[in-house]
Amino acid sequence: MQVKVISTNSGKFAEISKFFEGLDVQLEMQKLELLEIQADTLEAVVSRKLASVEESVGNCLVDDSGLFIDALSGFPGVYSSYVYRTIGVNGICKLMRGVENRSAHFECLFGFRINGRDYFFKGECTGEITDNPRGSGGFGFDPIFVPEGYSQTFAELPIEEKNRISHRGRALQHLRKFLENLLEKS
Amino acid sequence: MQVKVISTNSGKFAEISKFFEGLDVQLEMQKLELLEIQADTLEAVVSRKLASVEESVGNCLVDDSGLFIDALSGFPGVYSSYVYRTIGVNGICKLMRGVENRSAHFECLFGFRINGRDYFFKGECTGEITDNPRGSGGFGFDPIFVPEGYSQTFAELPIEEKNRISHRGRALQHLRKFLENLLEKS
Repeated sequence: MQVKVISTNSGKFAEISKFFEGLDVQLEMQKLELLEIQADTLEAVVSRKLASVEESVGNCLVDDSGLFIDALSGFPGVYSSYVYRTIGVNGICKLMRGVENRSAHFECLFGFRINGRDYFFKGECTGEITDNPRGSGGFGFDPIFVPEGYSQTFAELPIEEKNRISHRGRALQHLRKFLENLLEKS
Repeated sequence: MQVKVISTNSGKFAEISKFFEGLDVQLEMQKLELLEIQADTLEAVVSRKLASVEESVGNCLVDDSGLFIDALSGFPGVYSSYVYRTIGVNGICKLMRGVENRSAHFECLFGFRINGRDYFFKGECTGEITDNPRGSGGFGFDPIFVPEGYSQTFAELPIEEKNRISHRGRALQHLRKFLENLLEKS
């Protein structure tokens, strides 16, 4: 089975490829600029993104993710990458100064089109926002997010450990199970 | 001439109507949920918004606006309404604490479809971000924005004065001139 991963991020493609190891699936990265709408949920953004992929592309995978901070009404949410590019991790730390409720969660949603049908796989990871950035691994808001049950940030954890518990890792585990089932049946 | 103002905001419709007074134009408010894309410029958002209006709607007006803060790399920009709904004016004040460069500007862009052709009219208003919110007029980020040459915030200025110098007011003045010309010729 052939699947096109629609992304412009090679690191993300490598991470996804790892989760498909051992399955009879050939992944190919396709750089396409997809329509991203303004909406308050990943579901709205990703389903619209997937709908904007032309049918001729065939089996494909799109995704989006975001950091949702409880005390900031879910900010930066679906706009995480824009917020990262503008006010960055230091901006978030500043906004959270003196805020007692540090709860937040990362969400990741994959939209998967296979044989003309669309499926969605979600992963979440709850945790807390740190006072200051820590660690040099990962990317984006990883240095200020400590997942539940850990004391290190995503940027301090070994990459394998992060991928096992992260929002994206969890979504990819759901996706892999779905694929295993599908391939068994065929 | 009939023109549909596509908006869900009655206050905005009233403000726009005022600018069309004395012209042979009948405005009608039409509540439609239009496609808003994620992009870094108002031009991209508004042109896509206008393109998403079905041709059968006929002459119509759409718009978008945002506050762009220099020291925050343009944040909150085209996402101003989302940012207002989440971290609000207090969030912006917190982000700007201790920041020396207070420069910012409001932008407004109207997309106007008339007789099947699309035109764009932009207005800008430069100014500075205050340390704390002041005033109860206006809406959105008005209480933390002091336009150049003034000491009051948009929320402290009389509404007529604000409408004369604001980004939206300036864009509407361009639009009105265009319409006056057009109606003279016809």
